[in-house]
Amino acid sequence: MKIQYILEIVGTFSFAISGALAVRDQKHQDWFSASFTAFITSIGGGTLRDILLDSYPLVWISDITIIYAVMAGILVTFVFYKYLIGLRKTLFFFDTWGIALFTIVGTEKALHLGVRPEIAAIMGVFSAVMGGVIRDVMTNEIPIIYSREVYATACFTGACTYLMLNGMGVGRYTAFITAAFVIIIIRILAVKYKWRVPAFFR
Amino acid sequence: MKIQYILEIVGTFSFAISGALAVRDQKHQDWFSASFTAFITSIGGGTLRDILLDSYPLVWISDITIIYAVMAGILVTFVFYKYLIGLRKTLFFFDTWGIALFTIVGTEKALHLGVRPEIAAIMGVFSAVMGGVIRDVMTNEIPIIYSREVYATACFTGACTYLMLNGMGVGRYTAFITAAFVIIIIRILAVKYKWRVPAFFR
Amino acid sequence: MKIQYILEIVGTFSFAISGALAVRDQKHQDWFSASFTAFITSIGGGTLRDILLDSYPLVWISDITIIYAVMAGILVTFVFYKYLIGLRKTLFFFDTWGIALFTIVGTEKALHLGVRPEIAAIMGVFSAVMGGVIRDVMTNEIPIIYSREVYATACFTGACTYLMLNGMGVGRYTAFITAAFVIIIIRILAVKYKWRVPAFFR
Repeated sequence: MKIQYILEIVGTFSFAISGALAVRDQKHQDWFSASFTAFITSIGGGTLRDILLDSYPLVWISDITIIYAVMAGILVTFVFYKYLIGLRKTLFFFDTWGIALFTIVGTEKALHLGVRPEIAAIMGVFSAVMGGVIRDVMTNEIPIIYSREVYATACFTGACTYLMLNGMGVGRYTAFITAAFVIIIIRILAVKYKWRVPAFFR
Repeated sequence: MKIQYILEIVGTFSFAISGALAVRDQKHQDWFSASFTAFITSIGGGTLRDILLDSYPLVWISDITIIYAVMAGILVTFVFYKYLIGLRKTLFFFDTWGIALFTIVGTEKALHLGVRPEIAAIMGVFSAVMGGVIRDVMTNEIPIIYSREVYATACFTGACTYLMLNGMGVGRYTAFITAAFVIIIIRILAVKYKWRVPAFFR
Repeated sequence: MKIQYILEIVGTFSFAISGALAVRDQKHQDWFSASFTAFITSIGGGTLRDILLDSYPLVWISDITIIYAVMAGILVTFVFYKYLIGLRKTLFFFDTWGIALFTIVGTEKALHLGVRPEIAAIMGVFSAVMGGVIRDVMTNEIPIIYSREVYATACFTGACTYLMLNGMGVGRYTAFITAAFVIIIIRILAVKYKWRVPAFFR
């Protein structure tokens, strides 16, 4: 459980940065909206997963470290945002790191709670993308899942990879690391080569 | 419980089709967004109801058949959408079927969990319409409940019909079928004669 | 518990009026959308708080008085809206009264459920503002928290005031009333002098 915990903290911190940075595109932005958005982006997906799975108390309610990780992300964004934004790839980096960790952490958590692999994969994807979806919905943006970008699909592939390796009896760390890398690599390739999810209606 | 179960499956399947078809109006659509939208539309209302009523595990988490019904709806939409869309009334048909079933199934479920009839009626309406509301909110559409169409109002009337018949001691199947037909007929008449819910401010 | 209960009823009634009045700005409005919006605005924040804290049954499900308070708010709005809207400050009055009560009631409830003060403050703010946020999201408005207005920040300050006084051993009623007044006064001053929350990015 130890390493999962550390990864959840790192993922939360990464998502808080990507959330706070996202507020920059809003017509109005302030300390409250930046903090609120960082908070929603980083804890939204996991919170939805835990509510759906009836897994209480919610992690950020029972363990104040999560809130501090969000606050650290907000402060780091505030202090360093000129550098963070200058590097056009920063938001991408933190977001990709966040979705990779959260997908696998979410999939694992759901499995531990005894649900079927199909449901665990859905929960992994929800953990990773729904924080961003809630953020986008609140700020009247169209969520990335409606953009044809290979985003949630990358998470889904990673979750399935983990579940397959897990089902084959591969050790937990190997499965975790392999699956997270699958997500990161798919995301990098998808952005680089402008991959698109196939159209449903032609 | 048997027939309620079958009707929930049929309602889920109907809503999955109406959800997947709805993605066609989006600027971008792909396999993921169609599947995600079908899923949210069909399980959103019942999930909200069960979270509000603290009724766990959620049906689609404990029973994989629901997920398969959603997948069947997605596949049927993909294979037959040229015919489905050609028939302008198809989306209306599946949606009406879905809201009629979900309203009564939701009202019944809430009653069985011991809440008052007023709350059961609210839960019935939520089961039927909130999946669509969540879908519309995510895709930046104004939900149908803000259109003056007789939609949620039809569900509410059906839920009240069920509760009244139930209170009068009418048999369950009679009450169920009568109330579902009330919803379907109101919806058909409302669309045909362009009924509007009365204005609140004049 | 008695006074908290009465204040929750008064807050619910106030929020129902502000919710129903808000529908007036919609392209379409009718009895259903006004009632639905009044309901969501007044019970949304507390419902989210209770779901996050796993505090069941939800207040409005176990106690029908809440629903009646919402209905009373809707009826009062319908009968008197010409006068209510004529007084440009009415919406502001009911909304300010609502957020002040709900912030402190929500903070108290969270504390009683045993969470840390930091979490209790978040829950207080959520109780007060999330009903309005859900309403705005559903009607495609940008929530007030993205407007730089001193709104959620006023609630947060009030929640912290309550927690500080509470931690110092001040009596409950004194702490409650002081904190509620802090919120009301900050809101009045903020609107009068057009205070803005400091920008996050400069």
